[in-house]
Amino acid sequence: MIKVGIVGGTGYTGVELLRLLARHPDVSVEAITSRSEAGLAVSELYPNLRGHYADLRFSNPDPERLGACDAVFFATPHGVAHALAGDLLERGTRVIDLSADFRLRDADEWAAWYGQSHGAPKLLAEAVYGLPETNRERIRGARLVAVPGCYPTAVQLGLLPLLESASIDANHLIADCKSGVTGAGRGAKVGSLLAEASESMKSYGASGHRHLPEIRQGLGDAFGERVGLTFVPHLTPMIRGIHATLYGRLQGDVADLQALFEQRFADEPFVDVMPPGSHPETRSVKGANMCRIAVHRPVDSDTVVVLSVIDNLVKGASGQAIHNLNLMFDCVETAGLDAPAMMP
Amino acid sequence: MIKVGIVGGTGYTGVELLRLLARHPDVSVEAITSRSEAGLAVSELYPNLRGHYADLRFSNPDPERLGACDAVFFATPHGVAHALAGDLLERGTRVIDLSADFRLRDADEWAAWYGQSHGAPKLLAEAVYGLPETNRERIRGARLVAVPGCYPTAVQLGLLPLLESASIDANHLIADCKSGVTGAGRGAKVGSLLAEASESMKSYGASGHRHLPEIRQGLGDAFGERVGLTFVPHLTPMIRGIHATLYGRLQGDVADLQALFEQRFADEPFVDVMPPGSHPETRSVKGANMCRIAVHRPVDSDTVVVLSVIDNLVKGASGQAIHNLNLMFDCVETAGLDAPAMMP
Amino acid sequence: MIKVGIVGGTGYTGVELLRLLARHPDVSVEAITSRSEAGLAVSELYPNLRGHYADLRFSNPDPERLGACDAVFFATPHGVAHALAGDLLERGTRVIDLSADFRLRDADEWAAWYGQSHGAPKLLAEAVYGLPETNRERIRGARLVAVPGCYPTAVQLGLLPLLESASIDANHLIADCKSGVTGAGRGAKVGSLLAEASESMKSYGASGHRHLPEIRQGLGDAFGERVGLTFVPHLTPMIRGIHATLYGRLQGDVADLQALFEQRFADEPFVDVMPPGSHPETRSVKGANMCRIAVHRPVDSDTVVVLSVIDNLVKGASGQAIHNLNLMFDCVETAGLDAPAMMP
Amino acid sequence: MIKVGIVGGTGYTGVELLRLLARHPDVSVEAITSRSEAGLAVSELYPNLRGHYADLRFSNPDPERLGACDAVFFATPHGVAHALAGDLLERGTRVIDLSADFRLRDADEWAAWYGQSHGAPKLLAEAVYGLPETNRERIRGARLVAVPGCYPTAVQLGLLPLLESASIDANHLIADCKSGVTGAGRGAKVGSLLAEASESMKSYGASGHRHLPEIRQGLGDAFGERVGLTFVPHLTPMIRGIHATLYGRLQGDVADLQALFEQRFADEPFVDVMPPGSHPETRSVKGANMCRIAVHRPVDSDTVVVLSVIDNLVKGASGQAIHNLNLMFDCVETAGLDAPAMMP
Repeated sequence: MIKVGIVGGTGYTGVELLRLLARHPDVSVEAITSRSEAGLAVSELYPNLRGHYADLRFSNPDPERLGACDAVFFATPHGVAHALAGDLLERGTRVIDLSADFRLRDADEWAAWYGQSHGAPKLLAEAVYGLPETNRERIRGARLVAVPGCYPTAVQLGLLPLLESASIDANHLIADCKSGVTGAGRGAKVGSLLAEASESMKSYGASGHRHLPEIRQGLGDAFGERVGLTFVPHLTPMIRGIHATLYGRLQGDVADLQALFEQRFADEPFVDVMPPGSHPETRSVKGANMCRIAVHRPVDSDTVVVLSVIDNLVKGASGQAIHNLNLMFDCVETAGLDAPAMMP
Repeated sequence: MIKVGIVGGTGYTGVELLRLLARHPDVSVEAITSRSEAGLAVSELYPNLRGHYADLRFSNPDPERLGACDAVFFATPHGVAHALAGDLLERGTRVIDLSADFRLRDADEWAAWYGQSHGAPKLLAEAVYGLPETNRERIRGARLVAVPGCYPTAVQLGLLPLLESASIDANHLIADCKSGVTGAGRGAKVGSLLAEASESMKSYGASGHRHLPEIRQGLGDAFGERVGLTFVPHLTPMIRGIHATLYGRLQGDVADLQALFEQRFADEPFVDVMPPGSHPETRSVKGANMCRIAVHRPVDSDTVVVLSVIDNLVKGASGQAIHNLNLMFDCVETAGLDAPAMMP
Repeated sequence: MIKVGIVGGTGYTGVELLRLLARHPDVSVEAITSRSEAGLAVSELYPNLRGHYADLRFSNPDPERLGACDAVFFATPHGVAHALAGDLLERGTRVIDLSADFRLRDADEWAAWYGQSHGAPKLLAEAVYGLPETNRERIRGARLVAVPGCYPTAVQLGLLPLLESASIDANHLIADCKSGVTGAGRGAKVGSLLAEASESMKSYGASGHRHLPEIRQGLGDAFGERVGLTFVPHLTPMIRGIHATLYGRLQGDVADLQALFEQRFADEPFVDVMPPGSHPETRSVKGANMCRIAVHRPVDSDTVVVLSVIDNLVKGASGQAIHNLNLMFDCVETAGLDAPAMMP
Repeated sequence: MIKVGIVGGTGYTGVELLRLLARHPDVSVEAITSRSEAGLAVSELYPNLRGHYADLRFSNPDPERLGACDAVFFATPHGVAHALAGDLLERGTRVIDLSADFRLRDADEWAAWYGQSHGAPKLLAEAVYGLPETNRERIRGARLVAVPGCYPTAVQLGLLPLLESASIDANHLIADCKSGVTGAGRGAKVGSLLAEASESMKSYGASGHRHLPEIRQGLGDAFGERVGLTFVPHLTPMIRGIHATLYGRLQGDVADLQALFEQRFADEPFVDVMPPGSHPETRSVKGANMCRIAVHRPVDSDTVVVLSVIDNLVKGASGQAIHNLNLMFDCVETAGLDAPAMMP
């Protein structure tokens, strides 16, 4: 069994790791940390886990205990992995970071967007961006993986085929994204109350959002040079799910957009290119590690519209983290990630 | 008192007319028709109206009775107003049509999008497009008003200042729109069930939607020539509300976008330009005849983002219809439309 | 105009007072207090009020300013009205308290349930319990009114006819109540997040809830002696609304339950006894100052089931407070409270 | 592998069977029938199943094909299993009926509640009521199992310990039940639209509901004689989940309610008695085959309150059906049913 630890287990990505790992045949969760809930059984905080992880309690972070694990997931706010990852790597423990700490290659850019200096710039060189659809081989050998953000996952998967094939004007990409409220985390904020966030739709960060540089970096890698992107996220009255609606102006000869997407993802277990004319629903991936994509070319238009949906807590976070673990530890790639989405 | 009739009163725009007119000081509802519910008291179908409209029952459409009204609202599927409007106009009754029947000036374009020939092409010449913010004076004298669709209202109000001032590239406009489920009407469809439509987000009509030609016509009028528009509507898990997120590429000298919008709508009672940096929520207009707009210019970008929210049943339908009535009958412009939105 | 002040205006009952009073013909809001938001315009916190109350800003509580009002509403947590009501009454300002501070006649019982000593026991003698359906005449002359709680309003109105007529066993009453989440207030609590409270149903306080003694006191008054009551509240995934399902065992001769209810509330403008066989929906009172009631007698059973629905923020709080104001200041009883509910 | 068929696979219990069986190690789905969707791949109707059941298409019911299965699930409206079960049993195929067809032992009572005569009274003698917590051994040997209804499951599990021990007055039981909207099925009904059923709570069938005789039969079996029950179901604005709040008057000596419940269900894999003071949430069982129960004894009261929650589609339908299959075919009892609930 692969022994894993989870740092910061009280948030939504933490409990989602536990939900998914409960069915992973090769993994044993040895430790889960939380300063605020130390001593509490995980099932006391998350009653869905009653009957699972009978002896697992939140504990204060203990380098010895975490360092005895084969891998440690960070399901923490930014900055925490900066502080702890280096020590774990020295102990021979591999790190899978779900936070933003190692997603940007440029420490200065990170500092500019996060308002604090980068806490572990020396580790950046070996950090691997954990999007298996672009980085599978590098992930296999990685010691330190930065799991992509939720919006960046949905947007990159939707635009990769178009950028890699230079089929669209890369200077004027638009990503209009809609997310369920778990994207805002489990913090007690007035704006996230059911009484405030339900029966309403609003955008946020329209002038600039922290996921913008991450998306731009990934798309730039795919395209070969810097891209221009307008990214507007929206808060949607649902628990889970991201719907990315992506717009680009076609250029050059684009024979068959549908075939382009199908070929690009033919071997990917967690990307599903839907039939022509489809409109994927976020609920079709609820609870599942899957990205469903459809491509449209509206009438009378040179604009391509890509629809890309994921569950922000699974393919957008904990599921993708486990996918990375499977690659790093040579498990079956779909281990623990093979259950269908829950619908309705 | 202005005597009004409502044709097709069982749908959501019908009951919303009744809700709003209950507080209109100058209007008396004399008749409301429904073939399926003839004989039923309106409060039996809509218990929120118990205690209001005590004697009002649904009746079969009766030209005499409707023709005795000063004005008749059509809250019907397309095609019905085609059949009945001419007769009413001849009787001297003015017609305020909430359906799509008279929105497009070109009967052939209408036929192409609605899959049937236009039923009253001779009336098109005198039909006035009932968007008060562009057509106030023509509405005052109109006998036949086509109330704009919900999406077209939100999109046009958000883009008018930019097009009228030629501040953006009119060939590549993008309107990413999110609507609550009442936009789909009160018909019993599986896809509109709570079990199907809640906890999910999806687009529809991504390759072409009937509101596209209406929006394009209105924007073309504002710009002075044909515009290019990509319009993608999305179904959002909420009852009411439309959030239009609008993208255009800036061109020429745009000194102050905020001032441009504030000046354009300075005298409009039902358009609210919010302070810089705002992200309007649809719930801020829930139940109210109001469009709230914010303008953003994202960092590092030549793209302008306009956020425009309305209640699809009020400013997007019944409220705007009453606004038209107020103009046509020289009432106070805000009569019956002055209640604040309900929040939370 | 009646000059009113609002203490504690940032919560949901505060903004609901503003929403309803915006349409009250006889009332002018002169002051609204909030320590945390002092200086902020009300429309900055509640954008639905943009265009209303243009000059109204939250201010720190100022006895002079509040004392210059004819009446002051307290929309505060318990304890605040204890501290401030006496001074206002001495200044000749009448007090309408939406909190629990003056609902229980017995200061010791209050102290036992609220975990602190009663802060103004001397005022209890003159405090009037503001349920107009039982106390209309006393309210007219009152200087200090305790507006009933939301659950107590729904439960009392549903059981009054049965207890007043001694038609049920008063020792074993059951009130199973379901409330929308605004009942928990606008505080930032994890349990009230959309991600936690939606798509779920749970009870709380099943072993004892603070509204129990208030309900018991009111029902005891109606019955003439102490009653036995089991009260279980539930958190329902919706913004507004209370559904009280009430159970009692019939005793004696009960000729016609429907007539009993209809006669009891025949003259009440804000209680609607629905036709036999009805199942009132909370949405039928959304935003309206109305309690709708239906009475059922299940097959093969000596148990009566009463269904009683209100909007917790209106008939369960701010609307009922305004109803009290109307009575105290001799306004038309329905002033400001005559709009239909919003449905859908 | 156990070969199974599903009759009536387009409804919510049908797709839930497919979702759960996708992970069952011992089961192969050989056929799924639907007259309306014959020919369609299951993943075309339910995109969450894309990538699973690649070759499975809906087909018209074919006795040969179904009769070649080891077991057939009926996920159909009432009446269908009456018509088809006998033939299948003769072919040696075991029948697991999720409908109401074989739940009541008395054909006349069935006819009275369902408004049609019983279609297979001769099979009643061998039909086994599939509540494993009371009937485990009979289920193991059964050829024909009637899977309990959703409300009956939640209510019976919550009251069994009290009735078996004669701890409560069995003549005056009250079951106040709240269900998510999937309980109403996938039919296109206006009342089930998101626009109608969300943001609202209502009861239905308050005077008598078809689940009443089933519950009464089960409780009577537990108690040893006929019980008196008032059962009021409510429609709750959520997709899944039932919350049963159960009331009974204590009698005799009841030493320790908590211990009574814990002992009764100590060996049950799918009943979880929560710690004293708990208030189980329906979301804690979302997607899982689990019933969580808490027992309360309110202050100053001789009434016991039991809180019992299930997912109506899992423990209330398809999960319990698979549990029955596991017992009938000697699989591990939890096979296919061991995943934690999804939370949030």
